[in-house]
Amino acid sequence: MAKTFFTVGPAQLYPTFAQHIATAVNEQVGSLSHRSEAFRKMYQHADEQLRQLMNIPKTHSIFFAASATEIWERIILNTVAEKSAHFVSGAFGKKFMEFSKALGKQTQVYTSEHGEGFPNLPEYKIAADVELICTTQNETSSGVSIRPDLLSAIKQKYPSKLLCTDLVSSAPYAQIDFTAVDCTFFSVQKAFGMPAGLGVWIVNDACINKSVTIKNKGAHNTLEDYAKNYKTFETPSTPNTLGIYLLGKIAEDMNKVGIDNIRKITDARAEILYKINNEKLQPLVNDLAVRSKTTIVYKSAISAKEWNALIAKDALVVASGYGTFKESEIRVANFPGIGEEAFFQLIRNFE
Amino acid sequence: MAKTFFTVGPAQLYPTFAQHIATAVNEQVGSLSHRSEAFRKMYQHADEQLRQLMNIPKTHSIFFAASATEIWERIILNTVAEKSAHFVSGAFGKKFMEFSKALGKQTQVYTSEHGEGFPNLPEYKIAADVELICTTQNETSSGVSIRPDLLSAIKQKYPSKLLCTDLVSSAPYAQIDFTAVDCTFFSVQKAFGMPAGLGVWIVNDACINKSVTIKNKGAHNTLEDYAKNYKTFETPSTPNTLGIYLLGKIAEDMNKVGIDNIRKITDARAEILYKINNEKLQPLVNDLAVRSKTTIVYKSAISAKEWNALIAKDALVVASGYGTFKESEIRVANFPGIGEEAFFQLIRNFE
Repeated sequence: MAKTFFTVGPAQLYPTFAQHIATAVNEQVGSLSHRSEAFRKMYQHADEQLRQLMNIPKTHSIFFAASATEIWERIILNTVAEKSAHFVSGAFGKKFMEFSKALGKQTQVYTSEHGEGFPNLPEYKIAADVELICTTQNETSSGVSIRPDLLSAIKQKYPSKLLCTDLVSSAPYAQIDFTAVDCTFFSVQKAFGMPAGLGVWIVNDACINKSVTIKNKGAHNTLEDYAKNYKTFETPSTPNTLGIYLLGKIAEDMNKVGIDNIRKITDARAEILYKINNEKLQPLVNDLAVRSKTTIVYKSAISAKEWNALIAKDALVVASGYGTFKESEIRVANFPGIGEEAFFQLIRNFE
Repeated sequence: MAKTFFTVGPAQLYPTFAQHIATAVNEQVGSLSHRSEAFRKMYQHADEQLRQLMNIPKTHSIFFAASATEIWERIILNTVAEKSAHFVSGAFGKKFMEFSKALGKQTQVYTSEHGEGFPNLPEYKIAADVELICTTQNETSSGVSIRPDLLSAIKQKYPSKLLCTDLVSSAPYAQIDFTAVDCTFFSVQKAFGMPAGLGVWIVNDACINKSVTIKNKGAHNTLEDYAKNYKTFETPSTPNTLGIYLLGKIAEDMNKVGIDNIRKITDARAEILYKINNEKLQPLVNDLAVRSKTTIVYKSAISAKEWNALIAKDALVVASGYGTFKESEIRVANFPGIGEEAFFQLIRNFE
């Protein structure tokens, strides 16, 4: 019996994934040269579908890397000469900050309590010499998120600084105002319901222009190389071509459903998930303003391992808490690839 | 009608690829956590099958990255503090050298004429302050290779320097003596007949120990992080899990055929390919000692585009020459995934 994965990534595959990969095998997509017209059309298709789905304007380019983790490193290398600021609301924002330190940069760091986040984001002071403000729009480890209008507000306060936000587990749900966000990224093994191995990096010219001024920015996947190759929908080196093909197809399927419908279903399910509050499970995040709609974290009387033993009869799988919260919390993905029947089976088990 | 790709990468998919990916979809491999026991077993399986296939000893670890291009950067970052030496016999060896320069290192560079390579590799002098010697065992752009015993000989001459060789388009064919080679790597979209998106990095403790002494080695996929995670068959961040699964399965299939048989067939086909010598096609590489058995380059009276129009009736595809040789040369892969019928059809067309 096929399982339904409520894990937060790798996650449940999108319902059309199997069909698209079968087509890709038949069409020999895996053998296509990344310098061929067929590949350029695939890239362009994924680009167009993502633009439609996430309302990405022409001011921004869409580049492909191996993972969001790789993109963290490339962002710091390409857009920070000296200093970055970080709003850390969990383990992944912390790792992003640690990457900046490991790359020899100075960092200004604000860290929230576990599960609390930054409901007053625009009120924080950013040092004058900070070049890039790093935020986590949706923190996969703690289930806290940042309201998109707060990103716009902090950008308005610091218009000369680059603003970056991590959409790893909230794309395409999050409604980002790209006039405020210079740089964002996600990986496909979350809400897009694909196997891991592809990261998507969305940047504007301010980031690309900044990278031109920076000397030591690595050798591979620099923004300049990306921008040069992007003009003809190519990549600096051989990318995960099959992943790009699948992403284009799944984004197209999501466009057929419509992003408004995806958001409505996500909101409705999030409401049901957050109503769970009993002796075994309580939502970690209390402040409604920072509750993630796509990755729900519960304080749990029993571990994910024990939950998974209980719900194995229904072929359901949830994720453990992250790091030190591995035993005391569970995480539940609310991604579009999850079927309605499995969703309500999980709810019945939780109730 | 399905095509047979004689392109040098992305290349013809291995005959069992379609079956393995169907199994992976059924087994929901794409949803597996990279911190789960199921993933660790997949990694271990790929590791064991590669060790058997390529005779990789316990002295070496096997790590997964996104591509050989990424691995170039990680090698320089992790094993070179000041200076690397490069034997450049084509465009890819040159790019590897340029990565070292872009990362701020000094370089000692030997460059061969196009199609000539380094038949006397051990006779070249390497500067005393060079830490890493970079060679291309098989240069995909020019079809020249280095006999494995010459790699052993240069290591014997410079035992205190690290020796690296690029097996991108010769693994698993090349018979490497891992007591001489500290570091090597390949990507799976060549002879392993898989879609792109996975690079394999094989290093010994000398490389890992060297990386500990180096300060600015990037933040992502450092050798120290790899080594730490490898103890339990894990990776520093979410890898291309599906790719690792498929690589293990295809390496297992290759082991069933037997590496000796794969080498015999490769040798026999290479002999047939190099016999082609007519007014339209002449082998580029004249010196038998440096002729690649896996990537054959021809000087061609007509371009690959024209060849592909001619051989489209048999559903065959060859690759163009690289860079400035795009119109005047063609490249033909001699990889294990290519069927016998298609191979002889190509030969008949060439004759």
